[in-house]
Amino acid sequence: MDRPIGVIDSGVGGMTVAKELMRQLPNEELIYLGDTLRCPYGPRPKDEVVKYTWEMVRFLLDRNIKMLVIACNTATAFTLEELKDELDIPVIGVIQPGARAAIKTSENLHIGVIGTEGTIESKAYTNALKHINPNIFVNDLACPPFVPMVEQGIFKGPRAKHVVSETLEPMKQANHIDTLILGCTHYPLLQDTIQEVMGEEITIICSGDETAREVSVILDYYQTLFYGDRIPQHQFYATGDRELFEKIANEWFEEPIGFIEVIEL
Amino acid sequence: MDRPIGVIDSGVGGMTVAKELMRQLPNEELIYLGDTLRCPYGPRPKDEVVKYTWEMVRFLLDRNIKMLVIACNTATAFTLEELKDELDIPVIGVIQPGARAAIKTSENLHIGVIGTEGTIESKAYTNALKHINPNIFVNDLACPPFVPMVEQGIFKGPRAKHVVSETLEPMKQANHIDTLILGCTHYPLLQDTIQEVMGEEITIICSGDETAREVSVILDYYQTLFYGDRIPQHQFYATGDRELFEKIANEWFEEPIGFIEVIEL
Repeated sequence: MDRPIGVIDSGVGGMTVAKELMRQLPNEELIYLGDTLRCPYGPRPKDEVVKYTWEMVRFLLDRNIKMLVIACNTATAFTLEELKDELDIPVIGVIQPGARAAIKTSENLHIGVIGTEGTIESKAYTNALKHINPNIFVNDLACPPFVPMVEQGIFKGPRAKHVVSETLEPMKQANHIDTLILGCTHYPLLQDTIQEVMGEEITIICSGDETAREVSVILDYYQTLFYGDRIPQHQFYATGDRELFEKIANEWFEEPIGFIEVIEL
Repeated sequence: MDRPIGVIDSGVGGMTVAKELMRQLPNEELIYLGDTLRCPYGPRPKDEVVKYTWEMVRFLLDRNIKMLVIACNTATAFTLEELKDELDIPVIGVIQPGARAAIKTSENLHIGVIGTEGTIESKAYTNALKHINPNIFVNDLACPPFVPMVEQGIFKGPRAKHVVSETLEPMKQANHIDTLILGCTHYPLLQDTIQEVMGEEITIICSGDETAREVSVILDYYQTLFYGDRIPQHQFYATGDRELFEKIANEWFEEPIGFIEVIEL
C-alpha cells in the first residue's frame, strides 16, 4: 500500500533509522519528523517527553502514515506501550529490536547498554533483555554529553574521541561484555569513535539498523508493504534550525535530501 | 503466556529452527513435529504438500499452540498465505525472514538461493526478495540430493563434500553473488561443507536463525512472550523411524532431548 511510514525522533538521530529503512526497503516512502527545537529529550521528565511525542505523532497521523516508527529511545521508553494501545496502525520502537539483536549476537550473555539519562533510568533495555532471557547480565551507562555533541555535527576527531573515551570509562572497566547496544539513535553517528574506544572485540548493535529490519517484518506481516516500482519521495520536517538539520542530513545520507520543511508543533 | 510455540517440518531439518528458537527464546516451550515418514516434501506436487501440512497443523492446534512456525521451505512456499488467512494465531514461514536477512546483508544485491525442487520452482524466494527490492538479482538452484543425505545423518566428510561440490557447481559458475540463502531448513546441517565449497567470501544466510528472530518480533508484538522463569519442557513428535530421529536430534542439540513420540497423522 502506498501510504508512507512515519519516523519520529527528538532530533537528527533518527536519521540513522531512516537511512537504514531506505536501504532495506527502497520502495517505501518516509515522513521524518525531528523535534530539533526541543532536543534532547534524554534529560526531560517523563510527562514532558510523553506530551512532545504525542504532538509529533498527531502531526504524522494527519499525513496518513501506515506505520509509526519511534526512532528515539527515550520516547520509546516512555510512550511505546501507550501508543501501541491507542493507535490503530502498527507502532514500533527502537528498544526491543536492539535487545533482540544483542541476544542473537552475544555469546557470554553479558550485554552493555549506553543511552540518555531518561532511557537508562527507565531500565527499558534491561527489562526488554530480561523479559526475553532472565539470565542476561546487563551493564548500563548514561552518556549525557553524546547527544548535544552530535546535534552540533561533531562525530569524529580529537574532541569526539576525548568525550567518548572519558564518558565510556566506566563501561570499559566492566570488561566482561561482548556486545554493546547503542541505545540512542544519535550514537551510530559516533560509532567509529565508540568502536575505537571500546576495542574491536566488542560487537556494536545499532538499534536503528535492527529496527529497520523489524519494520519490514511487521509491514510484511500485515501485508502492507508497497508493491511495485517507484522512486519514493521522502519528506523531512524539523522544528528547529533548518540549515543545521539540512547539513547533518546531507552529510549522513551522502546525497541531498529532497523535501525539508520547518514546522511548529 | 505459557502456551507452546508449534514448529512443523517435513523431517529433521526444522530442528535447525528449533535450536535457534531455544537459544534466542530460552523461556519458551516448543512442540516440534517432523513428518519424517513422508519426507522429503520437495519433489511432491503442491496439493500433496498442502494436505500433509494441514495434517501437521491440525495435530499442533489440538495441543493449543500460540504461534505456528512453518520450518520447512517447501511447505512455506505452498501454504503460508492460506494458513495465515485461516488460523487465528500468528503464522510465520522461513522464506520471508531469509529474504529479509539477505537484503540486509548483501552489498552488491546479487543473491543466491538454494532449496528443494518445490521451493525453487515456486519462485517463492525470488518473489519475496523482489517484493521488497525489485532491483535484486536472484540466482536460484534446486539441490535434490541434499535432503535425503541429511535425513540419513550425513553432514560432513568426503561423501558430503563430493555431493555438495557437484550439486553447487552451477551456483559457483554464477560468481557474482555475495550472499547465499540456505532455502531449506535441512541445509544448515551441511553449512560447513557448503561454505567450504562456495568460498569464505560468500555470506551464508540460514533462514532458520532469522526465523527465530522474527518469531520473537511477532510474539513481542502480540505481547504473548512467556514472562517469568521456568525450565521449558519441549516435546518432539515424528511420523517415521524413532531411532534415526532421536540420533539426529541428539547430535544436533548436543544434548539428549527429552520427550519424543512417534505418531500417525
